[in-house]
Amino acid sequence: MNTMNLKHDLSKLAARAQEASRAMHGLSSQAKNLALVAMAEALISGKSVILKANRKDVLKAKAGRQTKAFIDRLELDDKRIAGMSESLLEISSLTDPVGEVIKAWRVPNGLWIHKVRVPIGVIAIIYESRPNVTSDCIGLCFKSGNSVILRGGSEALNSNLAIYAALKKAADCLRLPEGAINVVDTVDRRAVDILLKLDKYIDLVIPRGGESLIRRVVASSHIPVIKHYKGICHVYVDEDADLNKAESICFNAKVQRPGVCNAMETMLVHQDIAARFLPGMIKKFKEAGVKIRGCAVTFKIAKSGVQLATDKDYHTEYLDLVLSVKVVQSLDSAIEHINHYGTRHSDSIVTEDYNNALKFLRQVDSACVYANASTRFTDGNQFGMGAEIGISTDKLHARGPMALEELTTYKYMIFGDGQIRT
Amino acid sequence: MNTMNLKHDLSKLAARAQEASRAMHGLSSQAKNLALVAMAEALISGKSVILKANRKDVLKAKAGRQTKAFIDRLELDDKRIAGMSESLLEISSLTDPVGEVIKAWRVPNGLWIHKVRVPIGVIAIIYESRPNVTSDCIGLCFKSGNSVILRGGSEALNSNLAIYAALKKAADCLRLPEGAINVVDTVDRRAVDILLKLDKYIDLVIPRGGESLIRRVVASSHIPVIKHYKGICHVYVDEDADLNKAESICFNAKVQRPGVCNAMETMLVHQDIAARFLPGMIKKFKEAGVKIRGCAVTFKIAKSGVQLATDKDYHTEYLDLVLSVKVVQSLDSAIEHINHYGTRHSDSIVTEDYNNALKFLRQVDSACVYANASTRFTDGNQFGMGAEIGISTDKLHARGPMALEELTTYKYMIFGDGQIRT
Repeated sequence: MNTMNLKHDLSKLAARAQEASRAMHGLSSQAKNLALVAMAEALISGKSVILKANRKDVLKAKAGRQTKAFIDRLELDDKRIAGMSESLLEISSLTDPVGEVIKAWRVPNGLWIHKVRVPIGVIAIIYESRPNVTSDCIGLCFKSGNSVILRGGSEALNSNLAIYAALKKAADCLRLPEGAINVVDTVDRRAVDILLKLDKYIDLVIPRGGESLIRRVVASSHIPVIKHYKGICHVYVDEDADLNKAESICFNAKVQRPGVCNAMETMLVHQDIAARFLPGMIKKFKEAGVKIRGCAVTFKIAKSGVQLATDKDYHTEYLDLVLSVKVVQSLDSAIEHINHYGTRHSDSIVTEDYNNALKFLRQVDSACVYANASTRFTDGNQFGMGAEIGISTDKLHARGPMALEELTTYKYMIFGDGQIRT
Repeated sequence: MNTMNLKHDLSKLAARAQEASRAMHGLSSQAKNLALVAMAEALISGKSVILKANRKDVLKAKAGRQTKAFIDRLELDDKRIAGMSESLLEISSLTDPVGEVIKAWRVPNGLWIHKVRVPIGVIAIIYESRPNVTSDCIGLCFKSGNSVILRGGSEALNSNLAIYAALKKAADCLRLPEGAINVVDTVDRRAVDILLKLDKYIDLVIPRGGESLIRRVVASSHIPVIKHYKGICHVYVDEDADLNKAESICFNAKVQRPGVCNAMETMLVHQDIAARFLPGMIKKFKEAGVKIRGCAVTFKIAKSGVQLATDKDYHTEYLDLVLSVKVVQSLDSAIEHINHYGTRHSDSIVTEDYNNALKFLRQVDSACVYANASTRFTDGNQFGMGAEIGISTDKLHARGPMALEELTTYKYMIFGDGQIRT
């Protein structure tokens, strides 16, 4: 397709999505929940078609010599499809955020001002190879009353189209607003750039994937983007830490699932407990296959098996069994290090000291700050939001895990009886 | 100054502002309120210096043959300085938003999650010639715990610097965080473009001024911008309107202060009451000097003195005693017209019909939707927010009038006792 046609087609799609969003806005919670249940069922009844389409993508990825991790993210099976279906059911059981009166008050002249939660409108999701994102995002945007435009990775196009077809058919049977859920069905790479200029129709872009994808989206978008680039998360072991808790929390934060954004990348240790804490901790990490890059003091305490950390290491999101370790002089130095090298994602202090915990929680400028818990809890499900559409390290609109409420905005509805301004 | 120096100086200023914002965060409400009172007093005691500086700007504007309206916006006198001082006192009396626990809950593993309101960080305000914006913005950003970087119009530079000097001296006497309030003191036009690239230090930009200024800021900013371009506000007179209320509301919305963004630019009238309503209404408008641009039906009903409206007129923010008038077939056509031609600012329906009012409030996609009241109430003070830093027609983060709460974000503080993820 040439660029002119692509532009025209995508504009038309986005304009229809905006029109649909106005009808979506008016759907009752009941109608939306019913549709979500129908969509959940459609994934199960359409399983063989979806698996067949997915098989095509997997074979192509294997022929293209993609990594094992890549193929693992891409590949669907019975269990994964069941999981996607359950997610939709779970979303159907969550409270509908739309229509909530966030605040209401009367001003002296009698005007009755209501601040009411409403859908954002049209949301575009730009993502990479996981096909489950397709159904999760459709479910969350649908429940929050938004139209959605999905643009997944070309490696997963067959899978995404099959999932979309199943869900769309279920929606159409229930006569839901035409144009509310959309998948961009071209592999043409220019489609993303064109979408990102359609600020007339699209209200919000959420990119999900690696840092380079997200930077590309931010650089060329005319539409507000909510995102996180990366998660360089810290655990700081305070001089007053319970060392058993510290060991268990640090081990969990690094090792339980190292490839995700809320895993620990740097461990900070107060100098007064470094000699007691580090040898056992480092031994445990090494047994789990974690490679350590330490500061000079860590290097000295560990005696062997530690590589000297560079400044660049503290800026690195390893997403792997590699850990930076730094001994710091004080709580203040730890906070300073985190605010300088961190990515405003998730950071934790381990301490038994009341004032140190409070100081850390207040002064660390991150979306999620923990006292005595693993950073691995930064996750919509773990927070009790039932689902998650992404994590934000931005400060505007939404911060931390984002679910249904974060996919809404508000408007003021004002009830008067003839008031004029004097 | 050359560009290299300017870049270096502005980066340094912004970095210091970010550092100061971390200290600002920790200030007690009491300390902030005391400082605001001191600032209010400093404006009064420094009045003669401020007026002298303002005189320079005014003389220059007159020599440059600026319009009367321009000079009116620029010129200060005793009364205006007293007003600025009172604003600061009012801000000191408002509730401090920082530290509010917006929500808190416990998840099954015992983690205690707190969603806590915190300052945004560093806010840059780009504005035009009104010097009172300088003290208002310093007051609001200060109270909400943010550092602020002000860049006013070069025509008001002497006034702005004098106001800033008075407020800064008051802040310094109280040993408030160095670098929390800043004015960019160069007339070099490149300063704005440089500021807008400092996303490492600055969290939010709020432009205040004409549409061209705001478009320029949005086009070149790497930092999130909250704004409104213009306000094309509508009043729709429904077939079930009380015509006395309708006349009084429409007249107020157009005439009371036509040069502001919440004034009515287009009046929509249901076809079934057009013949009864329009002749008297148009007569009243004409007596007040309002020029009418009407649709064909309006043109016919009015008989004389109405110019035919073009499509472009419905897209125009007159900011003057000019009004577009259109007769519509139904409530649905009115809603469609507003969602198409409007700017998502403020729109009102006049009706005695319950269902029509509700439908309008729900389906018009604007920041503020009114039933039976003038659009002129979209204003932080009128909403009972005590002050206002601007109005947003964006959908993300803040919508409608913005005051202290809208200058904050939140973070999650999570209290654990050793939780790890399994």
